[in-house]
Amino acid sequence: MMTELPLEQVRTLLAVVDEGTFDAAAAALHVTPSAVSQRVKALEQRTGRVLLQRTKPVRPTESGAVLVRFARQLARLERDARGELGLSGPGEPTRVSVAVNADSLATWFLQALLRVPGLCFELHREDEDHTAALLREGLVMAAVTSSPDPVPGCSVRPLGRMRYLPVAAPEFAARHLDGPLPDLLPEAPVMVFDRKDDFQDGFVRQLGGTAAGPLRHHVPTSEGFLDAVAAGLGWGMVPEAQARPLLREGRLVLLARREWMDVRLHWQQWKLDSPALAALAEAVSTTAAQALRH
Amino acid sequence: MMTELPLEQVRTLLAVVDEGTFDAAAAALHVTPSAVSQRVKALEQRTGRVLLQRTKPVRPTESGAVLVRFARQLARLERDARGELGLSGPGEPTRVSVAVNADSLATWFLQALLRVPGLCFELHREDEDHTAALLREGLVMAAVTSSPDPVPGCSVRPLGRMRYLPVAAPEFAARHLDGPLPDLLPEAPVMVFDRKDDFQDGFVRQLGGTAAGPLRHHVPTSEGFLDAVAAGLGWGMVPEAQARPLLREGRLVLLARREWMDVRLHWQQWKLDSPALAALAEAVSTTAAQALRH
Repeated sequence: MMTELPLEQVRTLLAVVDEGTFDAAAAALHVTPSAVSQRVKALEQRTGRVLLQRTKPVRPTESGAVLVRFARQLARLERDARGELGLSGPGEPTRVSVAVNADSLATWFLQALLRVPGLCFELHREDEDHTAALLREGLVMAAVTSSPDPVPGCSVRPLGRMRYLPVAAPEFAARHLDGPLPDLLPEAPVMVFDRKDDFQDGFVRQLGGTAAGPLRHHVPTSEGFLDAVAAGLGWGMVPEAQARPLLREGRLVLLARREWMDVRLHWQQWKLDSPALAALAEAVSTTAAQALRH
Repeated sequence: MMTELPLEQVRTLLAVVDEGTFDAAAAALHVTPSAVSQRVKALEQRTGRVLLQRTKPVRPTESGAVLVRFARQLARLERDARGELGLSGPGEPTRVSVAVNADSLATWFLQALLRVPGLCFELHREDEDHTAALLREGLVMAAVTSSPDPVPGCSVRPLGRMRYLPVAAPEFAARHLDGPLPDLLPEAPVMVFDRKDDFQDGFVRQLGGTAAGPLRHHVPTSEGFLDAVAAGLGWGMVPEAQARPLLREGRLVLLARREWMDVRLHWQQWKLDSPALAALAEAVSTTAAQALRH
């Protein structure tokens, strides 16, 4: 099917999705809005499916998303080829879009980017559920995710384990947690990243308790979460890379010496023969091998 | 109209929106799924409007959002009243949900929370466009926003100005920006928060140039953005509270001594006679008065 798709129409579809409206796509492509509209309609007739929801901004339907991903992959292949041929001018940098979870971005991920000079990075900070959707839509080419199940069209490789330690400010621990943890944790104020974060609950269950307590503070940034724990707002599970310096300075204490939670991280990326993407994947693997546990 | 609304049905609607499905709402309310479904249908017949989009998760329609906001305000009033009467047990903390922009959260906002002990905070990190939507839907009761235009049902007070300084790593500045900035900035790699961030472009225009260059890195966290600038990935506009320590250590340099950009921040909150919300607003005002410019 792919080879028979009218590529100009596919590129137009991508422009409409990226720009959000038919008019903006027309301006970006230097054609009239009615030309844009005709191309999209022609593509819908050819494929026999509705490809766009006519919302503001425009959104691809499920069928449309398949073509949008194809268009992005096509654009990437073209750009790589032009780059290898020395045809990409200074106005056309090689762009790599990646979805990353907040804790990776706050700890080790930027180091990986520094290993691949000459690329332009577009990072999206997303939890792992949304990550898969971004890969499926083709909005990102790769993602750091906790899911080992490949999104269709993607390959997966393991990166290592990120360890989360149960910590609190010293005064907080003395006041709320001076005794058996499974009994005390459900009564103590707890930090939670967002509504989807069941990490603290999981830790309490791991200790044999029921769940973390109802006194919950939601702070949905990695550094804000850490700052709030250090300020004594609540206890929380913190990546060891962030916790260690504060543990050394005595600004945090470990709540349990032999208990923690590990999250296995994976790298998912489009199956695409792109030198830029391959170089990034290599840099991410190398950095993760140093920063994460095995 | 409000006083005639069947409150049990309104609460059920809220539970469905919060839990995401009819089944989960039924479990939370300890009733059968068909009871939930009947209540929502009855409310839709009574109001003559479709209130929920039957997606997964369920979403309120525009009319539904009005009732959801009403239900949240109702729940808040009830909780405050019970709290003042000493009726709220340890299982029912007073919860305050607030939307905050990333840079405020990374710099001064947590300090405000520490001034109001005894509340549970649910922070949402959002750019200012989405902030208004969250207030309108009633998902948050208050927001730090750049918009001085009140969302319907909300009051606004100014907080002060957050100053952004143009900075880069010293080696980066020596390599890319050793000359007239309006000419050099459009050629240099630039950090951008996300696709909506036109801050760097605005700064270049302020200097008389056209826009920041096409070599753009998108890093959508406040601390990641700062780290990337300090690592030499690009220049960027950084809140002065974050820039000052690194400027002192020589890890960043100012690109222009007399040029910066200021963002006026505002506090928007529901017009609601809630002691918890009033205490937080007071703490936010006081903290902002110290942390921001006037």
